[in-house]
Amino acid sequence: MLLDETPLFDPRFLQELDWSQNTASFSPVISPLNPGEGLVLRPLCTADFNRGFFKVLSQLTEVGEVTPEQFIKKFEHMKKSGDYYSVVVEDTGLGHIVATATLIIEHKFIHSCAKRGRVEEVVVSDACRGKQLGKLLMSVLTLLSKKLGCYKITLECLPKNVAFYEKFGYSSSAEVYMQKRFLD
Amino acid sequence: MLLDETPLFDPRFLQELDWSQNTASFSPVISPLNPGEGLVLRPLCTADFNRGFFKVLSQLTEVGEVTPEQFIKKFEHMKKSGDYYSVVVEDTGLGHIVATATLIIEHKFIHSCAKRGRVEEVVVSDACRGKQLGKLLMSVLTLLSKKLGCYKITLECLPKNVAFYEKFGYSSSAEVYMQKRFLD
Repeated sequence: MLLDETPLFDPRFLQELDWSQNTASFSPVISPLNPGEGLVLRPLCTADFNRGFFKVLSQLTEVGEVTPEQFIKKFEHMKKSGDYYSVVVEDTGLGHIVATATLIIEHKFIHSCAKRGRVEEVVVSDACRGKQLGKLLMSVLTLLSKKLGCYKITLECLPKNVAFYEKFGYSSSAEVYMQKRFLD
Repeated sequence: MLLDETPLFDPRFLQELDWSQNTASFSPVISPLNPGEGLVLRPLCTADFNRGFFKVLSQLTEVGEVTPEQFIKKFEHMKKSGDYYSVVVEDTGLGHIVATATLIIEHKFIHSCAKRGRVEEVVVSDACRGKQLGKLLMSVLTLLSKKLGCYKITLECLPKNVAFYEKFGYSSSAEVYMQKRFLD
């Protein structure tokens, strides 16, 4: 198995977004096709393993030890399902991933066999704060979920981040988020 | 396309659960293999379309109009992914579905390429309340997520239902559940 440039999903989904529907404001103006000088926004590929993809994720939470084989296996499962949209921002000069976020499509029987979106793992490298990349990623995934036909998109966040997500039209729900962790 | 008895997932996942790890109490005692007189707990199949599967779901939320073809298409996508575990309880005398709940496995790169569980669409028919079926389904899906190797399992619920889910070891998170709905 080789690490290569095959995208997790068709890049046209990003290129063909209707950016005029974006609800957040950017100053200076950036967009999916122009995310900032020396930066490119695109789908995740397995070659990003050697561009610090996990280093960026590790700024969000524990990533553990992952071999290229494990990464490729997970990537292939996600790609085959067609329901995983992991987006990265690469600093092309350095060849480093500097930000990432993932949209997951969850399938339903309710609401006429609907789809819903889930936003997960939104993280921007410390070194790239202040470049509006978190805002760009959230705008992109929100518009993408609409384009893919989701009836809603949801996420869980810390209370201090609620105001950030409100910029994209999200609102706090009356529902409670509950979890159970399994310790081995 | 035909509606048939092919299960959404291998029924052995239900048969081989370690029920001794269940944390909820049942009186009278019921279990996955003995969910109550005249009742069977098993994976969803497409023939459940004609056993009132959507009628039960409609007690939870809007289900819309769904054709057998749409149902089969969605079912096949879920089955192919291997990540959807929709369980039903059937009243075998009446040939009716009386309860259902779904566990969805979500794939991650974080936590050593982990899996997490999501509980969705837990509903028991009005006519079958008081038979501990909601409790049975929640116990089953929680144990199943552990068996499948999830590092955690989560759900969103109304505040009035928090105490119910605590029976299975879930606790309210500090995180806020946020959503955005798309209106067509």
